[in-house]
Amino acid sequence: MEKMIEATRRLVNELCSIDTPEDTRKHEIKHEINQLLDEMLSLEKQESESSEEAQVVTPFVVSVKNGGEIDYEKVKKQFGCKGIDESLIDRVERLTCRKAHVFLRRGFFYAHRDLDKILDRYEGGKKFYLYTGRGPSSESLHLGHLIPFLFTKYLQDAFKVPLVIQITDDEKCIFKNLKPEDTKKLGRENVKDIIACGFDVTKTFIFSNFDYVGGKFYENMVKAGTCVTRNKIDGTFGFTGEDPVAKYSFPAVQAVPSFSSSFPHLFEEDIPCLIPCAIDQDPYFRMTRDVAPRLGYSKPALIESKFLPALRASGKNGKMSASDANSAIYINDSAKDIKRKINSAVTGGQDTLEDQKKYGANLKEDIPFQYLSFFLEDDAELEHIRKEYGEGRMTTGEVKNRAAQVVTEVVEKHRKARAAVTEEMVNAFMAVRPLPSMFE
Amino acid sequence: MEKMIEATRRLVNELCSIDTPEDTRKHEIKHEINQLLDEMLSLEKQESESSEEAQVVTPFVVSVKNGGEIDYEKVKKQFGCKGIDESLIDRVERLTCRKAHVFLRRGFFYAHRDLDKILDRYEGGKKFYLYTGRGPSSESLHLGHLIPFLFTKYLQDAFKVPLVIQITDDEKCIFKNLKPEDTKKLGRENVKDIIACGFDVTKTFIFSNFDYVGGKFYENMVKAGTCVTRNKIDGTFGFTGEDPVAKYSFPAVQAVPSFSSSFPHLFEEDIPCLIPCAIDQDPYFRMTRDVAPRLGYSKPALIESKFLPALRASGKNGKMSASDANSAIYINDSAKDIKRKINSAVTGGQDTLEDQKKYGANLKEDIPFQYLSFFLEDDAELEHIRKEYGEGRMTTGEVKNRAAQVVTEVVEKHRKARAAVTEEMVNAFMAVRPLPSMFE
Repeated sequence: MEKMIEATRRLVNELCSIDTPEDTRKHEIKHEINQLLDEMLSLEKQESESSEEAQVVTPFVVSVKNGGEIDYEKVKKQFGCKGIDESLIDRVERLTCRKAHVFLRRGFFYAHRDLDKILDRYEGGKKFYLYTGRGPSSESLHLGHLIPFLFTKYLQDAFKVPLVIQITDDEKCIFKNLKPEDTKKLGRENVKDIIACGFDVTKTFIFSNFDYVGGKFYENMVKAGTCVTRNKIDGTFGFTGEDPVAKYSFPAVQAVPSFSSSFPHLFEEDIPCLIPCAIDQDPYFRMTRDVAPRLGYSKPALIESKFLPALRASGKNGKMSASDANSAIYINDSAKDIKRKINSAVTGGQDTLEDQKKYGANLKEDIPFQYLSFFLEDDAELEHIRKEYGEGRMTTGEVKNRAAQVVTEVVEKHRKARAAVTEEMVNAFMAVRPLPSMFE
Repeated sequence: MEKMIEATRRLVNELCSIDTPEDTRKHEIKHEINQLLDEMLSLEKQESESSEEAQVVTPFVVSVKNGGEIDYEKVKKQFGCKGIDESLIDRVERLTCRKAHVFLRRGFFYAHRDLDKILDRYEGGKKFYLYTGRGPSSESLHLGHLIPFLFTKYLQDAFKVPLVIQITDDEKCIFKNLKPEDTKKLGRENVKDIIACGFDVTKTFIFSNFDYVGGKFYENMVKAGTCVTRNKIDGTFGFTGEDPVAKYSFPAVQAVPSFSSSFPHLFEEDIPCLIPCAIDQDPYFRMTRDVAPRLGYSKPALIESKFLPALRASGKNGKMSASDANSAIYINDSAKDIKRKINSAVTGGQDTLEDQKKYGANLKEDIPFQYLSFFLEDDAELEHIRKEYGEGRMTTGEVKNRAAQVVTEVVEKHRKARAAVTEEMVNAFMAVRPLPSMFE
C-alpha cells in the first residue's frame, strides 16, 4: 500500500514538472495514476466485499439480497457439501430396514458430509454417535426448532446409537446479550421440549455448556483453538474487531462435542459422530473437520437440512423468525391460532376460483402445501394433493384446512408429550453418567 | 480511505486538464495532493507503529530497543499504575504490625493499583483475598519464578487472608504449543514448589485451569468476554489475525479469578482481591478492572514487581530467560553451580583492584549486589556492603562470595521444603473445598 502511494506521488511530481503542454506523455501518466489508484481501491474493497454477497448464510445471518428465496443448491456448492440423492436414501432404508423419515425422503435434509462413510461404518458393525444442539433464546419454541430433534429421534431409533445434545446457553449470552441465569433457565425449559420428542434416556446425554464445559471438554476446546487462526475464524463467521472477544471463544465450544474424547464418561475410544443440523451450522463443522485430523480425531459427518419456510413473505427468504410471532407456528399455539396463521400464509393459489381451476396452484410458492410436505406422513395423500391442487381441482382453502389439521396434530402430540416431562426426567437426561446400553 | 483516494483522483484530473502552464494553481494542487497522500500514509502506518516502540512490556514480550535496561518508571506511567512510596510501606507495616518484606521495603515491588483501598478495607475490618498464578512451562523453576510466591506468602501471613493460585496449564498449550498432558504434569510439579514456599493449606486453594474451568468460573469467563471487543484485546496484548484463536480466549481465563464469585465453594459475597505479580501481567488486570464494574464486581487491586535481573548481559534487559541456563539460578542448582554462575555474572566492579579502591563499584550495574539486595534479610549488613563496596573498600570477589552464600541458603531452604511435599499435600491444596478458617 505504502509503495503504491509513493509511486503515485512520484508520478504526480513528474506531471507537475511538465511545463510545456505535451499531450502523449501526460496521458500516459494519467493512465498510470489511474491504474495505481484502482489497485489501491480494490485492495481496500476486498475486505468489505465478502459481506455484500447476494446471499449470505452463516450461523448468525441468513439473508438474500432483494428478498429473493435461498438458493440451497448454491449454498451447498459454496460450502462444499454433497447432495443427498435417491441411491443414498435407498441405502439408508436398506441398512436401517425402515422407510426413510419424510424429512429425508422429501428432500428437506438435502446435503451431507461423509454420510456415506458413516453408513460404511454402520454396515461394517463399527460405532458412531449422533450430536446435535440447541441455543436457548426463547422459552416457546416454534415448529422450525423441533425439526432437527424430530429427525434426530428418527436417526437414533433407526441406527440405535448414542446421542449427545448440547444446550448452548453460553452462546446466547455471547451473541444475544442475555444473562447466564436467564439462558440457563430457558435451556432447561427447552430440554423439556427436546425430551418430549421421544429420545431414549438410556442412549441420550443432554448437557448445558454452563454446567458441562470443563475437564476433557475444555482441553479439547483449547486444542481446537490452537489449530485455527483468528483470520480463519473471521473469514468463516464474519466476526470483526468491534465484536466482543467472547465470540471468538465460542466456535471451539460448538466444535468439540464432535470429538468423542470430550465425553470421557461415555466413550473410551475415538469414534466419529454424525451431526443432523440446518445448513447454516455448516461453518462450525467445516472448521471442526479441518481441525480434527490435526488433533488425531475423526472428522464429524453431517446431514444438513433446509429451513422450514416462514408463513409470511417477510421471512420467506430466511429461517423462521422468533421476532415475528405470526410468521411461525409455536409449540403452544392453539388449534385456533394455527388455523388463523395458516390462513394468512403465503400461497401459490390463484386469485379467483376460476383462475385456480384453469391454471392450478404454484406449489413451490405455496407455504401450506410445503408444510403438508414436511408434516403429512402419508405419501399417497400428499401425492394426491400435489396433483389435485397443482392442477386446479383443489382449492387453496381446502389445502389450508388440511395443513392446519396436520400441523395441529403435530403440535398437540408434542404438547401432550411435553406435559408429561418432569424435572426428574430432565435431571436424568442431564446427569453426567455412563450409558452402558447406548449401542443396543 | 476511499473518499480520500477519489479526491486525489479528481485533483489529478484537474491537474491534467490544465494545458497552459499556470504555476500558482498547479502548486496549490500539488500541495493538496501531497497532504492527502500524507494522510493516507499516516492512516496506514498507525497500526504498525505501536509494535515499533522502543520498549515493549506485555505478558508475552519484554524487550528494550538496542539492549538497554527497562525503564520501570516509564512502564508504570504507560500502564497507569501508581508508585509505592515510603508512606504506603509505613502504613502496611503499621496495619500488619510487622516489618515489610524486603521485596517491598527495597523497592522491588514498586507499583500498585488500589493497594490503598485494600488497606482501607483491612483497616475497616472488611475482607479481601489474594490471587496469584503460575504458567507451568518447565519443571525446574528459577529463582525469578519463586519471587511472587515468596512475596505472596508474606502477604498471606501478614494479612491473614485466603489465597487462590491459578496454574495456567491451558495458557502454555496455547502460547507455547505444549500438550495438555505435559503442562498438567509440569503444573503438578510446580505446585510442589509453590507449596514449599510455606503456604497455609487452611487458607489456600491451588487450581489447574484444565481441572477447574467450568461452572461459575466459566460463566464469568463468558461474561467478561462479552464486555471487551476484539480490537481492545488486540491493542492490549498485541495479537494479530495470524495468531491461533485460542489466544483470544485466554485473557478471560486469567481475568476471572479476580472475581470472588468464580469460587463459589469459598466466597458467598463479592469481595475484592489483591494480586501480587510482576509488572508484565498488568495488561490482564487493566482489562479486568475495565470489565469488573460492568459485571457488578469489585475491581482487583494490584501490587506489582520489577523482574529479577538475569545474571548475564544477554538477558539483562528482560525477565530471566529459561532458555539460557547460565543466565538464571535454578531451584535445583548445586552450591557449586550457584557459585560458578554468580562468579560469571555482570558486575559494576572496576577492572583492577587499584581502580576499585579508587572509584568503587557501580552498584546499579552490579548483579551480585542486586541479588544481595533481594535476598539478604539483614538491612544493616546490606547497608554495610553498599557503603564498603560502593566506595571501593570491598572487592567484587567478596561481594560475589556473599551473594553466592545468601542465594545458596535460599535455594537450599527451598529444596529442603520441596522434598517434604507429598502427593497427598498437593491433593489437599488442590481439592475444591470450603476453607472455613481462611480469615482467621
